[in-house]
Amino acid sequence: MLQNIRVVLVGTTHPGNIGGAARAMKNMGLSRLVLVDPRIFPSPDADARASGATDILEGAQVVATLEEALVGCRLVLGTSARDRSLPWPMLDPRASGEKVIEQAGEGAEVALVFGREHAGLTNEELQRCHFHVHIPSDPAFSSLNLAAAVQVLSYEVRVAWLAAAEQGEASRPASAHNAELATMDEMEGFYTHLEATLVAIGFLDPEKPRHLMARLRRLYGRSEVERSELSILRGVLTETQKAARGEPYKRKDQ
Amino acid sequence: MLQNIRVVLVGTTHPGNIGGAARAMKNMGLSRLVLVDPRIFPSPDADARASGATDILEGAQVVATLEEALVGCRLVLGTSARDRSLPWPMLDPRASGEKVIEQAGEGAEVALVFGREHAGLTNEELQRCHFHVHIPSDPAFSSLNLAAAVQVLSYEVRVAWLAAAEQGEASRPASAHNAELATMDEMEGFYTHLEATLVAIGFLDPEKPRHLMARLRRLYGRSEVERSELSILRGVLTETQKAARGEPYKRKDQ
Repeated sequence: MLQNIRVVLVGTTHPGNIGGAARAMKNMGLSRLVLVDPRIFPSPDADARASGATDILEGAQVVATLEEALVGCRLVLGTSARDRSLPWPMLDPRASGEKVIEQAGEGAEVALVFGREHAGLTNEELQRCHFHVHIPSDPAFSSLNLAAAVQVLSYEVRVAWLAAAEQGEASRPASAHNAELATMDEMEGFYTHLEATLVAIGFLDPEKPRHLMARLRRLYGRSEVERSELSILRGVLTETQKAARGEPYKRKDQ
Repeated sequence: MLQNIRVVLVGTTHPGNIGGAARAMKNMGLSRLVLVDPRIFPSPDADARASGATDILEGAQVVATLEEALVGCRLVLGTSARDRSLPWPMLDPRASGEKVIEQAGEGAEVALVFGREHAGLTNEELQRCHFHVHIPSDPAFSSLNLAAAVQVLSYEVRVAWLAAAEQGEASRPASAHNAELATMDEMEGFYTHLEATLVAIGFLDPEKPRHLMARLRRLYGRSEVERSELSILRGVLTETQKAARGEPYKRKDQ
């Protein structure tokens, strides 16, 4: 469905930005670029900044007006500064990504429109858009580089696309942690071993235990220790106990 | 709280990317830039791409090693390609933004670390990070421009910051974790001590280290070790080393 999405750059002044936009698009899986009246294109500067996304530049469509660029589109989103005399339905980038994927998923042609480096889109151009998108930037320094703006919106489109693809499967929560975790009883065995070792090296005084074991339980408890990590920790304790008994250590390969 | 967040660029080759990163940061309200061993800096190319964010370039701190760049940090996120031989706790950019704001909001120093244009971060550098961040890109063309990657993560930080500001202080969920966490340099001191101790007890063979230290870094790294817990762990190591030297232990009250 990503092929239903076109990125439209209007009146771009610096060809390097066209190349940067192409790279950002391709990183996010987008491929259709439309250029409305670019000042310089094609250009070695565009190729250099595209850095491998030259196929997108070669396939780019160059047209004279925004109207031509939007032929066939059912949904058009235009980037805009926040303050406009004309109030208009606004979306933030996240909601834009979701809207784009929802429509593209139904087979609709969708356009993301970006204006000139310094002047943005004209009011007339903005009025051709169904929604305006504002990237939340610091009001004191609000103007993003054109390729950076394409990057942010393309990224949100991809995030929404991945989420939609995942929803298609089961509703499985993405865990940061797939390895097999130690069980509660394995952790208990570890704490017993740890306590014995701390006594053996004289760090824990059984008559004045303070809250030492509780504090160590809290530390390891919140780590979600994996089974393979636990065996490392147990190995360390075993060697520590030998050292405490005064046994010289032998490497296994000796 | 945004001033608690530093962006760290490691081994940047092209000064234009440093300028682009500075602009992206400033657009999103971030201001602290640290450069680890940049090839060329300062540079007119950096100034040109910064396009008004020259104050960030002028205030940038240039250091020789990642370790110096991370002094004082309690949370470090490093950008990474998805596939790594060593699995590590991963966050997507959205969760990263939330984590960064949660920690920075509690007064912690936080670093977002970005690697070299072509080679990224080394495994050793990645092991200094609590979490790895992967920007979801098309596997067929996955390498983002450096400034574009800084743009995406800075954007997610800003989105999380705006959301937190909107939620207001009142409804901010109390963190599970109020105690003072150990800093990165304190953790480095611990890892050095731990490694020396594991060698002393014969558990770690310096000639065949396997991935032992990396695995232990990963375990403790995700635990968000408190300063007071770290002093317990250091105490255990000190007593273990004494045992390994064959010293009989004495209780302090004897």
